[in-house]
Amino acid sequence: MPKVTPRTLSGFMELLPRDQVKLEKMMQILRESYATYGFTPLDTPVIESAEVLLAKGGGETEKQIYRFQKGDSDLALRFDLTVPLAKYVAANYANLSFPFRRYQIGKVYRGERAQRGRFREFYQADIDVIGDGKLDIINEAEIPAIIYDTFTRLGLKNFKIRVNNRKLLNGFYAMNGMSEKAGEIMRTVDKLDKIGAQKVKQLLIDEVKMLPDKSENVLDFMAICGTNAEVIERLENYRGMDETFDQGLDELITVTKYLADFGVPEENFAIDLTIARGLDYYTGTVYETVMTAHPEIGSICSGGRYDNLAEYYTDKQLPGVGISIGLTRLFYVLQEQGLLSDEVVTSPCDALILPMSEELGYAVAAGRVLRAAGVRTQLYGEQRKFKAKMAYADKIGVPFAVLIGEDEIAAGVVSVKDMASGEQRKLSPVEAAAFIKAAVAEKNRGALIKEGVK
Amino acid sequence: MPKVTPRTLSGFMELLPRDQVKLEKMMQILRESYATYGFTPLDTPVIESAEVLLAKGGGETEKQIYRFQKGDSDLALRFDLTVPLAKYVAANYANLSFPFRRYQIGKVYRGERAQRGRFREFYQADIDVIGDGKLDIINEAEIPAIIYDTFTRLGLKNFKIRVNNRKLLNGFYAMNGMSEKAGEIMRTVDKLDKIGAQKVKQLLIDEVKMLPDKSENVLDFMAICGTNAEVIERLENYRGMDETFDQGLDELITVTKYLADFGVPEENFAIDLTIARGLDYYTGTVYETVMTAHPEIGSICSGGRYDNLAEYYTDKQLPGVGISIGLTRLFYVLQEQGLLSDEVVTSPCDALILPMSEELGYAVAAGRVLRAAGVRTQLYGEQRKFKAKMAYADKIGVPFAVLIGEDEIAAGVVSVKDMASGEQRKLSPVEAAAFIKAAVAEKNRGALIKEGVK
Repeated sequence: MPKVTPRTLSGFMELLPRDQVKLEKMMQILRESYATYGFTPLDTPVIESAEVLLAKGGGETEKQIYRFQKGDSDLALRFDLTVPLAKYVAANYANLSFPFRRYQIGKVYRGERAQRGRFREFYQADIDVIGDGKLDIINEAEIPAIIYDTFTRLGLKNFKIRVNNRKLLNGFYAMNGMSEKAGEIMRTVDKLDKIGAQKVKQLLIDEVKMLPDKSENVLDFMAICGTNAEVIERLENYRGMDETFDQGLDELITVTKYLADFGVPEENFAIDLTIARGLDYYTGTVYETVMTAHPEIGSICSGGRYDNLAEYYTDKQLPGVGISIGLTRLFYVLQEQGLLSDEVVTSPCDALILPMSEELGYAVAAGRVLRAAGVRTQLYGEQRKFKAKMAYADKIGVPFAVLIGEDEIAAGVVSVKDMASGEQRKLSPVEAAAFIKAAVAEKNRGALIKEGVK
Repeated sequence: MPKVTPRTLSGFMELLPRDQVKLEKMMQILRESYATYGFTPLDTPVIESAEVLLAKGGGETEKQIYRFQKGDSDLALRFDLTVPLAKYVAANYANLSFPFRRYQIGKVYRGERAQRGRFREFYQADIDVIGDGKLDIINEAEIPAIIYDTFTRLGLKNFKIRVNNRKLLNGFYAMNGMSEKAGEIMRTVDKLDKIGAQKVKQLLIDEVKMLPDKSENVLDFMAICGTNAEVIERLENYRGMDETFDQGLDELITVTKYLADFGVPEENFAIDLTIARGLDYYTGTVYETVMTAHPEIGSICSGGRYDNLAEYYTDKQLPGVGISIGLTRLFYVLQEQGLLSDEVVTSPCDALILPMSEELGYAVAAGRVLRAAGVRTQLYGEQRKFKAKMAYADKIGVPFAVLIGEDEIAAGVVSVKDMASGEQRKLSPVEAAAFIKAAVAEKNRGALIKEGVK
């Protein structure tokens, strides 16, 4: 029979089993963490009507969208989880309670140019809080606090959530008479990290056509740094010149105060005036998150406050605040950097039962005892030589092999072999279950991400 | 601004939050159950190269497939989880350990005619065990035993796993000289449930062109029923006439014996000679599962033994056995039949903190105490009237509201209100956490599916 090469499309992550287990553990931690804060899980279709999905226009992503006909229908694959959320909230408005808090972990699709570390199918893990008409500022502090907690649960330590406020920026540009150029200025200032202050200043003068002293003002403002208290103190110098600025500053002060209440340490959170995010969407607090040991990776978790989630679908004013983890990319980066722990158990099972006789009834019964105690147990039912069985146990990385031969059956015990130490002990099935369960729990106690503390 | 109607495509399930929580709980039980038996989670792309996905030909499903061009690529959405598994195993053969046991819960796509209860995007939840060259018969008993355990964990009671063996059927047709017509006969016999024995007999004579006595033989064979021991006893009468039949009978006897070892009660498991399944794919044991109180629903979980998983991709002989739950359809049916419990907690949180004063610091701190104890806690941060806050608590169905006013702050306590009974008690945050945690665990103790026992 002629064969087709079994290949996976480039830009589509498909993991080997033990890596997949790590990704699943990551997703499970995200689900648990989000649920702990009272977010409800949502699942929307991968395929939507193109008219609905592109109601807003896809913007820069429009040409990347997977769009196709099926019968008479013009369809498209979702490219983020925000547009489907907007559709969902608008369509189910009457059946939802506001504030509506949802998390969604799902695959999205963008036909980007294929390159290393870029994915065309990738998971996003989003949380959003949507208000009906209004939404309190405390949500803008809670969202990064949840992200702090979530990353901490994953074992990530060296990260910083950078916070800014769009009103503060807009107010600053207004007080300098630069409102019309705000977009252009922000795009230019965005290059600060890459090309430095001098070159940004030159670009502001040459391309944005700003006067030198105005461009100096912008750079002075963007250069404000220090502890959060120091930054706020310096921002207070600008107070009283623009109403929007003052409002943004008040919001930033409130968010900063609440973040401390929520238990986020100052080292994981910094006001950063250079953060702007989506120019026409966000209206208040905005966030980016960087791994401080790997700034080159860019933001691993971003979001902010918006005033109108679903204006393309409904007249209802639905303000919200949300944040998104690019999970597939984050996982890829952690893997590349060798930051995923090899201590957590990633084998398909905790115990592998290896029957040494042909009669399997006793082994089947022992498996039931182990599973009833919560030990993930595989029964190896193949008739093979002992050596082949042990080689299998080794290859799947199982922590414990459970050997059952005629002697064990006669004595009503099993032989539990610790695959790491080689130690072997005869125990009753009930004792074996308790022993393995405790040992595996110990192995799984460590965090999924292992970083050196910087 | 002109509005686009926020609609979801027909045939695509999108649930309201409390129903979604039930589906998530179902998926979590499936994941845990599959993992308990030593299956590793797998995740393959939704999009594959059409050439790869359709290597085998899509058969009847080919015209239902979502297939489209993106740039130069001919792409298709997966229509099941078996073809991607075959691709995965063939592509990663050298890196896998055999038997390779994987579960996958994922969305698949079929552009079926839209009708009530039919879905174009739906979850399948599959387990498969793949051998390298050979695979022991015990796996053919373990698979339905896992399904029995899984359905039991979900709370399903009135179900029966029907088991048959393709060798037995093929052998029977061979001994009657009807091998060439086996396919046609099986398709006709498949109508027994619907049109009855007399009409099937007439069809066998008129359309399949069988002699009356041969069609009588078929119907006699198919009519064999009783306890598993009785069926086997009657099947023994056919022994010695065809080698394949005898082999099939031996397999059926072995599977039946092991199923008892695995703890599957006879009432949940029956040999049923009318089950055939995919004509050219399955080669040994085959399964279907029916809800005995709702036979009209058809099989909710089907599968079987196959000899060649990936022959379109590789020369390796990869026999396997697998089973698939049509999760979206099962969930839909359970919902329609009112079989999903309303006792399990489906609100986004276990505790809703309602601050009665403007200062939120104490409420934020109380929330941290509750969450640290594992209570899913939402802080209601909106400035609204008490009545509106309580209406929200009611609407989201939270079991406990946690009221925090000036008095509570002064006394260092919180007021925990049981939303069902109206009872209210003042507790320290630590006591409140323990109290709510225990009460919620009690509420969640019940099964997700609530059936009357038949």
